[in-house]
Amino acid sequence: MIEESIKKSIRDIVDFPKPGIVFIDITPILKDQNLCSNIVDAFVEELKDLDFDAIAGIESRGFLFGLMLANKLNKPFIPIRKAGKLPYTTIQQSYDLEYGSAVIEVHADAFKPGAKILIHDDLLATGGTVEATSLLIQKMEGIVAGFTFIVGLEFLNGKNKLAHFSKNIYTLAKY
Amino acid sequence: MIEESIKKSIRDIVDFPKPGIVFIDITPILKDQNLCSNIVDAFVEELKDLDFDAIAGIESRGFLFGLMLANKLNKPFIPIRKAGKLPYTTIQQSYDLEYGSAVIEVHADAFKPGAKILIHDDLLATGGTVEATSLLIQKMEGIVAGFTFIVGLEFLNGKNKLAHFSKNIYTLAKY
Repeated sequence: MIEESIKKSIRDIVDFPKPGIVFIDITPILKDQNLCSNIVDAFVEELKDLDFDAIAGIESRGFLFGLMLANKLNKPFIPIRKAGKLPYTTIQQSYDLEYGSAVIEVHADAFKPGAKILIHDDLLATGGTVEATSLLIQKMEGIVAGFTFIVGLEFLNGKNKLAHFSKNIYTLAKY
Repeated sequence: MIEESIKKSIRDIVDFPKPGIVFIDITPILKDQNLCSNIVDAFVEELKDLDFDAIAGIESRGFLFGLMLANKLNKPFIPIRKAGKLPYTTIQQSYDLEYGSAVIEVHADAFKPGAKILIHDDLLATGGTVEATSLLIQKMEGIVAGFTFIVGLEFLNGKNKLAHFSKNIYTLAKY
């Protein structure tokens, strides 16, 4: 039911950001606050038996539902940002892009060693950024408790990159 | 009360992003979901007599409380993003930075002409990005209904840039 509502709301943008790519545009979801609430509720239901201490959301679109979910579950929210954006002492993790590489960061005091962290992003594609976020959490001696995504592009096999961090991968709408 | 709680939670980072700047770090707020809820409730209270149709949140930090507030008030949420991030047809607005310039965008179908838009960001400093967002909304024949900020750096006079768009400027914690 939630999967159908999400898929009905999402639109495909052909050739974005470059020819040959079909981009999944989640922004229409944001116009429909009933659907937004239902997405948060669906995550809460999926997570009801999962033990975790905080939610890490990946900039920028992971900030949208990441904080709402953290608020609903009364868990601290940890922003994962591109390099140079977080003002306090940070820990970094670089990762490969198709051409070149990128760096993400987290504040060094974002959580304590041993904390169990749920990672959230809007969409799981090839999983590069989410994998880097998992490595970053491990670098800070955190434990990856699981992952939540609104949309998962299963044919890109992003889950293969994540399964050895945690098998708890919750995706509301699968393609 | 909310102002005190926010100020207690915020930390000042000296010389970020460059020497001579004191950066207001709001990320500690995100660890405290009671405070996050209180911030949303304080905005709701401030906005109770304001007539508006949708909330526009400015990437990235304006996504955090922007969507929560939109959800609480059952209003559509409009993401305002840096150029090249929104996949559908966009309308652009450029603005000056200290050195050079930047471009923000909104989806061309984000709202209808005549819609009254509340603009949200976490912090009002000199107001350049918020002014550009206001111009962008006017370019799409929207009406700027008002502004909400968690923090306002009053000594930078950002309000002067915004007052001719709307006098409804709501700031929870002022410096």
